[in-house]
Amino acid sequence: MTEAEAVSSISCSGHGKAFLDGLLLHGKPVCECNMCYGGSDCSQLQPDCMVDADSGDPTFLEPFWVKNAASSAIVIAGWHRMSYEYSDGSLISEELKAHIRNVHASVGNAITDGKYIIFGAGATHLLNAAVHALSSKASSSPTKVVASTPYYPVYKEQTEFFNSEDYKFNGDTSMWNNDTSNSTFIELVTSPNNPDGHMKKAVLQGQFVKTIHDLAYYWPHFTPIVAPADEDLMIFTLSKLTGHAGSRFGWAIINDEAVYKRMLTYMDLSTYGVSRETQLRVMKLLKVVLSGNGREMYEFGHNTMKNRWSKLSKVLSQSKRFSTQKLKPQHCSFSQQIRTPSSEFHIDVIAAFAWLKCETSILEDRSCYEVLKEVNITGREGSLFGADNRYVRLSLVRSEDDFDLLLRQINKLVSVEINDKHVATTSTILRQSNETTLLLTAGVNVVNRTLDLRMELETLNSNIFPRQNGLYTTIDLSFN
Amino acid sequence: MTEAEAVSSISCSGHGKAFLDGLLLHGKPVCECNMCYGGSDCSQLQPDCMVDADSGDPTFLEPFWVKNAASSAIVIAGWHRMSYEYSDGSLISEELKAHIRNVHASVGNAITDGKYIIFGAGATHLLNAAVHALSSKASSSPTKVVASTPYYPVYKEQTEFFNSEDYKFNGDTSMWNNDTSNSTFIELVTSPNNPDGHMKKAVLQGQFVKTIHDLAYYWPHFTPIVAPADEDLMIFTLSKLTGHAGSRFGWAIINDEAVYKRMLTYMDLSTYGVSRETQLRVMKLLKVVLSGNGREMYEFGHNTMKNRWSKLSKVLSQSKRFSTQKLKPQHCSFSQQIRTPSSEFHIDVIAAFAWLKCETSILEDRSCYEVLKEVNITGREGSLFGADNRYVRLSLVRSEDDFDLLLRQINKLVSVEINDKHVATTSTILRQSNETTLLLTAGVNVVNRTLDLRMELETLNSNIFPRQNGLYTTIDLSFN
Repeated sequence: MTEAEAVSSISCSGHGKAFLDGLLLHGKPVCECNMCYGGSDCSQLQPDCMVDADSGDPTFLEPFWVKNAASSAIVIAGWHRMSYEYSDGSLISEELKAHIRNVHASVGNAITDGKYIIFGAGATHLLNAAVHALSSKASSSPTKVVASTPYYPVYKEQTEFFNSEDYKFNGDTSMWNNDTSNSTFIELVTSPNNPDGHMKKAVLQGQFVKTIHDLAYYWPHFTPIVAPADEDLMIFTLSKLTGHAGSRFGWAIINDEAVYKRMLTYMDLSTYGVSRETQLRVMKLLKVVLSGNGREMYEFGHNTMKNRWSKLSKVLSQSKRFSTQKLKPQHCSFSQQIRTPSSEFHIDVIAAFAWLKCETSILEDRSCYEVLKEVNITGREGSLFGADNRYVRLSLVRSEDDFDLLLRQINKLVSVEINDKHVATTSTILRQSNETTLLLTAGVNVVNRTLDLRMELETLNSNIFPRQNGLYTTIDLSFN
Repeated sequence: MTEAEAVSSISCSGHGKAFLDGLLLHGKPVCECNMCYGGSDCSQLQPDCMVDADSGDPTFLEPFWVKNAASSAIVIAGWHRMSYEYSDGSLISEELKAHIRNVHASVGNAITDGKYIIFGAGATHLLNAAVHALSSKASSSPTKVVASTPYYPVYKEQTEFFNSEDYKFNGDTSMWNNDTSNSTFIELVTSPNNPDGHMKKAVLQGQFVKTIHDLAYYWPHFTPIVAPADEDLMIFTLSKLTGHAGSRFGWAIINDEAVYKRMLTYMDLSTYGVSRETQLRVMKLLKVVLSGNGREMYEFGHNTMKNRWSKLSKVLSQSKRFSTQKLKPQHCSFSQQIRTPSSEFHIDVIAAFAWLKCETSILEDRSCYEVLKEVNITGREGSLFGADNRYVRLSLVRSEDDFDLLLRQINKLVSVEINDKHVATTSTILRQSNETTLLLTAGVNVVNRTLDLRMELETLNSNIFPRQNGLYTTIDLSFN
């Protein structure tokens, strides 16, 4: 207890945290700084730092849990739940299951009545358990696992990695829309979709098609809740509900008893269930989620994400080189569900990721991922999602620091675009006036762009800055 | 904190426990009773209850953690480690890794210097990760996974369940001892062996053979520590070190960097690492294990197991129908390792399981498992271990209650054997005296044996109790 209090009192300037199990200096835990921050108290912003917009690490919810530290803390005794099994012989806490049903009922995003619930170590674990359970052992050829592009990269990576005789990844769903071979299919449906946030429906139909609905992002933080989902097999994860990605906890809601049992066997033989300390902690977190009028966390999460999406899309709307997905405003039923009048959730445009598109004009030989990398932004390459290299996914669910730095870089990128127009205009004037030196001061500091601009200037002003005589050595290309 | 203290103050008569995440009655957690105990405070021993000696649930160590409750408890804040990754980008706590190295150094059971360490959700998870990492993708036929009988059943069940193209379970190692086909092999070596406690060495040799050493039971509680293990790939699990099976935590110690990296990828794509609350708790538990002179837990565990093994083997030594494995007394280096003079660990005979053999004479059409089931003992069938049905594994690592009940039933069984001799003698006398009624009172109460004995009497005394006229209706076969 003393340890836990000591560690939470260590100040890291709002740009980091000290942890009980972190590195020690003179016996005391040290600050672990957010990306791009350094110094013993994380107060120093590092120049020219690579901004991480790659991983969907949902730390945007951390401030909510810091604020609710007292009610969300747990004490675990050394003798707590040592057994392999709960006293009913299962690997799953019945109490936790009841809390999960209550959370879905309060949000109105999924129907759980009369359905089976199983736990896994995050959606990652449950996805393969579901694919395994739904793949046909009777069929002569392996079940085809498909997903509509752009799709969550783990679907492909995981299915290929395990290299089972029972199933194979077979790419984009649309390629199989008119298949008449009586193949068995598992269609992965992600709604809202990762990366682009669109609500999706299953595409394939017929007796040989099973579907897995990955509803990880179907929470009020990320999307309008339009109606409770009622699919055969639905997967949710704690990381996208409360932000606790490190806890490795997810659940599946299943209609069919035989499928449920096959998934239980998968859990028995892969990990023998989910850690008891995790189940205890998740229950405590869900108690906080459900407490009060059951809307505090969603309000915090929703406001944060809406704010971010609106800032980012506003900047990008000024650009002709970069664009992002268009999302329809939708009515959110969650505000009715919680029965407290609120304007917050009524009409919503919101997304967990920007699915950024680079216009071909600026790509040259580069991918959109590389274009961003040049301005110190790491996104996730479109090709990983089965899309082409004009696309890149930018994560908006990370810490406030990460988002602020991302927005700053995107702002610069768009400013460069505006300045580039100015450069082109200046160059034309220069060409006409036939001057031999140039002092150019643009409004942004993008060191990595210097070389590109220099080359662009060379091309535009070849008569002014001939390559052969080096007359352009006095050019000042500092961008402030 | 208050909750945690309240729950630990609930009395369950030493035959159960109340848990924070258990069922509630009037808002208060209720006692969860050990097997065969009931009532609101678990004080009632249930008659004719089935004794569980099946699972290797290591709750024999629970009293140690109850005694060390204060030093082994942890507080986890709601904001603790929400991220997918530690600040170094990994899924593994470096601090915990250091503690694991210290534990091995203090016990002297494995060399970790210069080796890689990876975490998984228990040995179960790591076994498949290791098989996956060691299987050959280059080979034209799947890698053959083998183990020496009797082997831990999960090896076969898991390998077959995942149905990979890369590896197949191929049974007993000895069948492949003289294989000249240049097949690639993975040999699973379990030392001490589960079920029989024997120290094992790899059998297969050559450039196409990889080995996985499952050293789950290589701790002073279960076996003499003869020398530090120094194998290419060694698997350990928390459940058999501290008894926390429910935490689902294990680790592998690996020589080869490429194998280590393949296992990391496996963890990424199966569960994305081990829960952060689990890693935090394990670190706390290992701190207790290492504290003081680093021998308290081992002493408790060792004394408990040695006591159980000696009681059980003493009873079985009186039997001609049942026998158990013979273990050689060995010198244990652990007592030197901890550098405190102690007679406890010097010369040891100890085992986690009784590998019970039923003599053919009493089997008739039954398996040894069925013979035990008839006297209300559930063991684990020999056939699951690749052995024949004369064998059954009895777990000695469960709670004190479970062991006491097991010992009581085994005692009865051996008493029946002695009484059965008496019945046979009585029958012979009856046959000679040609009496027509019999009042038989034996010294034990084994209701399930009644029918067997009745039939035995019928056969022996067919002239006294002819089937056709029902003269034997007055027989009293009550066993007290």
